[in-house]
Amino acid sequence: MTHDISPLHLAQSLLRCPSVTPAEGGALAFIEEVLNEAGFEVHRPVFSDPGTQDVENLYARYGKGEPYLLFAGHTDVVPPGDINHWRHDPFSGMIEEGELFGRGAVDMKGGIACMMAAALAFIRSNPDFKGSIGFLITGDEEGPAINGTVKLLEWAKARGERFDHCILGEPTNPNTLGDMIKIGRRGSLTGKVVVDGKQGHVAYPHLADNPIPGMLRLLDGLLREPLDRGTEHFDASNLEVTTVDVGNPAANVIPAEARATFNIRFNDLWTPQSLEEEIARRLREAAGNTVRYTLTCEPTNAVAFITEPNAFVGFIADAIQAETGIRPKLSTTGGTSDARFIVRYCPVVEFGLVGQTMHQIDERVAVADLDRLVGIYGKVLEAYFAAAV
Amino acid sequence: MTHDISPLHLAQSLLRCPSVTPAEGGALAFIEEVLNEAGFEVHRPVFSDPGTQDVENLYARYGKGEPYLLFAGHTDVVPPGDINHWRHDPFSGMIEEGELFGRGAVDMKGGIACMMAAALAFIRSNPDFKGSIGFLITGDEEGPAINGTVKLLEWAKARGERFDHCILGEPTNPNTLGDMIKIGRRGSLTGKVVVDGKQGHVAYPHLADNPIPGMLRLLDGLLREPLDRGTEHFDASNLEVTTVDVGNPAANVIPAEARATFNIRFNDLWTPQSLEEEIARRLREAAGNTVRYTLTCEPTNAVAFITEPNAFVGFIADAIQAETGIRPKLSTTGGTSDARFIVRYCPVVEFGLVGQTMHQIDERVAVADLDRLVGIYGKVLEAYFAAAV
Repeated sequence: MTHDISPLHLAQSLLRCPSVTPAEGGALAFIEEVLNEAGFEVHRPVFSDPGTQDVENLYARYGKGEPYLLFAGHTDVVPPGDINHWRHDPFSGMIEEGELFGRGAVDMKGGIACMMAAALAFIRSNPDFKGSIGFLITGDEEGPAINGTVKLLEWAKARGERFDHCILGEPTNPNTLGDMIKIGRRGSLTGKVVVDGKQGHVAYPHLADNPIPGMLRLLDGLLREPLDRGTEHFDASNLEVTTVDVGNPAANVIPAEARATFNIRFNDLWTPQSLEEEIARRLREAAGNTVRYTLTCEPTNAVAFITEPNAFVGFIADAIQAETGIRPKLSTTGGTSDARFIVRYCPVVEFGLVGQTMHQIDERVAVADLDRLVGIYGKVLEAYFAAAV
Repeated sequence: MTHDISPLHLAQSLLRCPSVTPAEGGALAFIEEVLNEAGFEVHRPVFSDPGTQDVENLYARYGKGEPYLLFAGHTDVVPPGDINHWRHDPFSGMIEEGELFGRGAVDMKGGIACMMAAALAFIRSNPDFKGSIGFLITGDEEGPAINGTVKLLEWAKARGERFDHCILGEPTNPNTLGDMIKIGRRGSLTGKVVVDGKQGHVAYPHLADNPIPGMLRLLDGLLREPLDRGTEHFDASNLEVTTVDVGNPAANVIPAEARATFNIRFNDLWTPQSLEEEIARRLREAAGNTVRYTLTCEPTNAVAFITEPNAFVGFIADAIQAETGIRPKLSTTGGTSDARFIVRYCPVVEFGLVGQTMHQIDERVAVADLDRLVGIYGKVLEAYFAAAV
């Protein structure tokens, strides 16, 4: 039997799989079946790591030639929360007034359905195109992200796979399909500062050493000057102090210790290393010889990256404009994504559905958006492989 | 039978009463018995208040004339902690190598024993002295202090009692008997500041409002300038931020609220009201139009007070010097005491034993210090009533 490759059918089929991280839920098996039927070579590597649950993944390729355009994404979803609060069962794929409901509708089973629909239609119309189309789908994007994209990329590289370009189908549009392409992402660095003092009675401050004024000095030192003024494609790097805690319940006691955590979303002027050095320098300067403190930065693989606007980005922007009439903004805002791992292998651009309902109760997508996104991905495929001829 | 009025015997008898606040433990009954025998008129008012436990108190007076010198103190003690950590049972009154052990040895059953011994010896030697000697002893100094000194003073006033001077026998000496007389105490004010923000994701700071930078500004505004430079008898008023708490465990989340508590020990330049106004002014100035916050100051009866050095203080200082060879420092340092309540009725000065072991495991007093303190109190009585002739 031949599968219905309409994006609505593909999306509904995927939404009906209860693939809350790290469960596969039948989603990857469904994709495997559909892609197999269309002539893809499909692999289903399972990755393990001590202390984590095994995770299933999928890698598929059609064609052996170049250029190689890879679609990337994930079938795992965040938990639905209280199912009774949903208008429709989050794993039923119900449609109401032109909207398809379900956990993952926009993040990102809907996006995967569109990629598949576009790729299969393109292959059907251009059976002898020069090049390759691939799918790199993980089941560990919303979870620890240890047994997912990173290992799948390493696994593919070890098999000799080389990609030329990648489209990651995360929901990038804030309001309307076509609003925004993400051509890079900021990096993320989290650090903790602990200031040591000496406990004592507030009536005898000379016998104690209150760590709080020292903490105020250090945090002021971190926040006083902007880290930078932004770059061509990036906003200024931003430091947020996310918590300050002393936990002293007694108003007549000077506490022994103060702790703070900060997170920095940084642009392409910085590496995690150069940023950590800058933070250490600012703290040293603010502390002088008087504040005793320690700084600990968490290891991070969330580096900043940028895919400079070029022909590839142009294909996507043009396709969006042709399909929606909107010229998309090229953005580097927002949180991190698996694109930070993919960029080590090939240029990557993110474009998918509208993100408004992602991770929320009643996550949903307009059925018309699914059709338009298939149209956009289809036009990208046409332009990409036409240019390669 | 006539009681042994040596300070050691009196102190041991009191230490053997397990009078952990609010228990009377037999301590006030013992004092009543001894003072009664010596010709005092003794009262044992019990005070109550909703939500607190009833507390026994003692008021005693010898003589009807003026001047009236009042000895004040408390028989309740803080809990002993783990009794197994004590060298001797904290309620046994054991002596080892010239030191008397027990909870309350210096704070302040030892002091009460010395007051009693000195007063009884003075009365025995001067049966017809002009004036009055009184005792105002509470069982609620280490606890909530609601059913103790405040009510006992009101009760005495209602009976028409008027005091000329008071000696409070708290342990005032940091190291050696004779070091320090307390002629006043700083006041205490505790306040809380809450800064309101708006929660959000660190990747989208423009959609959130981090309350922490605002809190840093407010605390800096509180701490930047000293409250004052001190006065003749007082150190500078001191503000300690005792805790700052946000309690946000997620480094990718901007928190909604930040909380801080401060405590001020203030001198006689301030009242709680004028100080609260100054704090409010500093916060308003630091906040500008950008920081949304609330300030709440706890009600306080811990006002600053001073008994200006005069003849009465001179009697005490002279007696100390005559007995110990040390000219005592006139101090206003340290925490609050019941003297802040007594000062509303008459000038009050604090002088007692050495405080080093107060509230600690193995609280103890040198037996020789008990004798010396009786000598000091005795010389004060001689000088005080001689001057009154």
